[in-house]
Amino acid sequence: MKVTLNRTSFTQQLQTVQRAISSKTTMPILTGVKIDLSNNGLTLTGSNADISIESFLSSEDEKAQMTVESSGSIVLQARFFSEIIRRLPEDHVTLEVLENNQVEITSGKANFLVNGLDPESYPHLPTVDRQKEIQLPVDMLNKLINETVFSVSQHESRPILTGVHFMLKNQRLLAVATDSHRLSQRIIPLENDNGQFDIVIPGKSLTELSRSLTDEEDTVQISIMENQVLFETKNMKFYSRLLEGKYPDTDRLIPSSFNTEIEFAVPALLAAIERASLLSHESRNNIVRLNISEDSVVLHGNSPEVGKVEEDLKYEKVSGDPLEISFNPDYMKDALRAFGDTTIRISFISAVRPFTLEPTEGQGDFLQLITPVRTN
Amino acid sequence: MKVTLNRTSFTQQLQTVQRAISSKTTMPILTGVKIDLSNNGLTLTGSNADISIESFLSSEDEKAQMTVESSGSIVLQARFFSEIIRRLPEDHVTLEVLENNQVEITSGKANFLVNGLDPESYPHLPTVDRQKEIQLPVDMLNKLINETVFSVSQHESRPILTGVHFMLKNQRLLAVATDSHRLSQRIIPLENDNGQFDIVIPGKSLTELSRSLTDEEDTVQISIMENQVLFETKNMKFYSRLLEGKYPDTDRLIPSSFNTEIEFAVPALLAAIERASLLSHESRNNIVRLNISEDSVVLHGNSPEVGKVEEDLKYEKVSGDPLEISFNPDYMKDALRAFGDTTIRISFISAVRPFTLEPTEGQGDFLQLITPVRTN
Repeated sequence: MKVTLNRTSFTQQLQTVQRAISSKTTMPILTGVKIDLSNNGLTLTGSNADISIESFLSSEDEKAQMTVESSGSIVLQARFFSEIIRRLPEDHVTLEVLENNQVEITSGKANFLVNGLDPESYPHLPTVDRQKEIQLPVDMLNKLINETVFSVSQHESRPILTGVHFMLKNQRLLAVATDSHRLSQRIIPLENDNGQFDIVIPGKSLTELSRSLTDEEDTVQISIMENQVLFETKNMKFYSRLLEGKYPDTDRLIPSSFNTEIEFAVPALLAAIERASLLSHESRNNIVRLNISEDSVVLHGNSPEVGKVEEDLKYEKVSGDPLEISFNPDYMKDALRAFGDTTIRISFISAVRPFTLEPTEGQGDFLQLITPVRTN
Repeated sequence: MKVTLNRTSFTQQLQTVQRAISSKTTMPILTGVKIDLSNNGLTLTGSNADISIESFLSSEDEKAQMTVESSGSIVLQARFFSEIIRRLPEDHVTLEVLENNQVEITSGKANFLVNGLDPESYPHLPTVDRQKEIQLPVDMLNKLINETVFSVSQHESRPILTGVHFMLKNQRLLAVATDSHRLSQRIIPLENDNGQFDIVIPGKSLTELSRSLTDEEDTVQISIMENQVLFETKNMKFYSRLLEGKYPDTDRLIPSSFNTEIEFAVPALLAAIERASLLSHESRNNIVRLNISEDSVVLHGNSPEVGKVEEDLKYEKVSGDPLEISFNPDYMKDALRAFGDTTIRISFISAVRPFTLEPTEGQGDFLQLITPVRTN
């Protein structure tokens, strides 16, 4: 194997697959990046127990300025190899596999000779089954992930809740995450898609996927296999394992009739919650209290040791019964951030029942739900 | 005490004194910031065992838009108080001390009531003695610190070496730091200053001082007291304790005749050292090797497990005996960074004697010294 190519293009490609590579793996070969060179171009692979990323750089790519002298494969220790590439003196780098998996890396007058690993011992990626597929624009998928993934459980006590539930049915894609204290749900209509699937993707995989999907113009092809899902763009294949087990029925958790409704501009409410949480964070039970009456809405934060805060909130509209309700301000912050700069409606039943946040202008396709904290 | 002022000005002032405040102190009152309000303006004080910073904001300062309603003092928990100020909704903030050291913080509709501490129990700062004083421009002092402080020892086994030695004598200010493996020295001529002093300032204090001296236009007044030094600018007083004991005589360590000399452009040499250290860092003994002969200079890095690197270095000029010498590349990196983008001369005696780095254009006023590593 021998190739010369542009260092910047190669560095970018390396960064993509490195998201999947951990130095804390129990399989030493997985600390490496696999390099496969053919006349068509360079394929890099990185993998850990949960995700695998394959990135392709075409020899036709003008920026890559690639000259393939002979094809072949090698595995190199990823972190160390990337550091070398990053620090080379010239715009181009030449990689050549010598005997015994030794690799010569040359750029200008700098000449590295590093020990590689046998590419035959690198695990094979899953075979792709093109039976169940959908396509989504990258920006839509990224938005979907960022609107839901923060609600997955961080605890392994119920492993299924550490993932986001994706369900395609009746030409609708539903994504739901819940840690049993709060819930995030987004529905995307897919009018031309009559397929059907029901899978749970680990939250951590989705977070990495979202970071890897940088080209917002692109389209993602999503293929679902026995226990894997593949997200494929023009130059990248991103595999994640699926979580096993049945995701709980979340439809029954979402209330549909309410006694108190109030509308807020998100940025102002978020800033007030952040202020109130400064005090709740100093207290043992991290809660803030909202007092809604006909003519005022007041937010309270309190820490017996440190002090207290009180703020008269600006709201757009209020209706229904007066209410005093307490909740974890961190759940509220996460939910509000998912809406961005818009106006939302918060709908309550009572001080002890979950309440919902929805865009004022929405059609029921995006919802956040938070369970309050009982204070007496 | 009651004052209303611009939040941005106040935040900046708070940030300055916070450099001196640690949450890990054994004296609870020192986790606080002391606030003193007079008709002239607002004085903030932060302190820990090593340094104290006092910052003054004049009531005449236009940007501060300060209205003093009544003077007084209070101590508030610093980290928490700064977070509140940072998150307030409006451009202005009002602070009012109520009964029992309670403080009301108001901005727009947000209203905080926090528990303060008795300002009488805050320790007093040292009294300034104006006997021994010099003045330096801020940019010169910052440069001096950044050229030397990295060479102080990180180990408490010889506490005196954790400081930078400052000596004023014969109209010259000398600053030296050494951890006994390498040494950094800067001399500044002070032609109108006939004073004399000999002090050792903790390296950590100087690093914090350098971060606090942001206005490069300003002048620093340096006053030396019994066991303290005060750096004073227009709006800030920065106190540091001094290290006790006698600093070793470093003059005798600096060689004056050499057998091999070579000149390099700093950025190219630094980049090559950084590449070679990628391999030395993977090895147990972190060293790189330099081979100087009449017609080539080659840098080697090696790690038996990972691989090796070899680079033909570009140099400006070489003279004297051929030499093979090994050294810690991290010391070399620190030294080279202190020179910036210039040309330097490295002067060697032999493979086992310390070598020096000096600007090619220098007059002996700036020098870095590194002790090589014996390899046989």
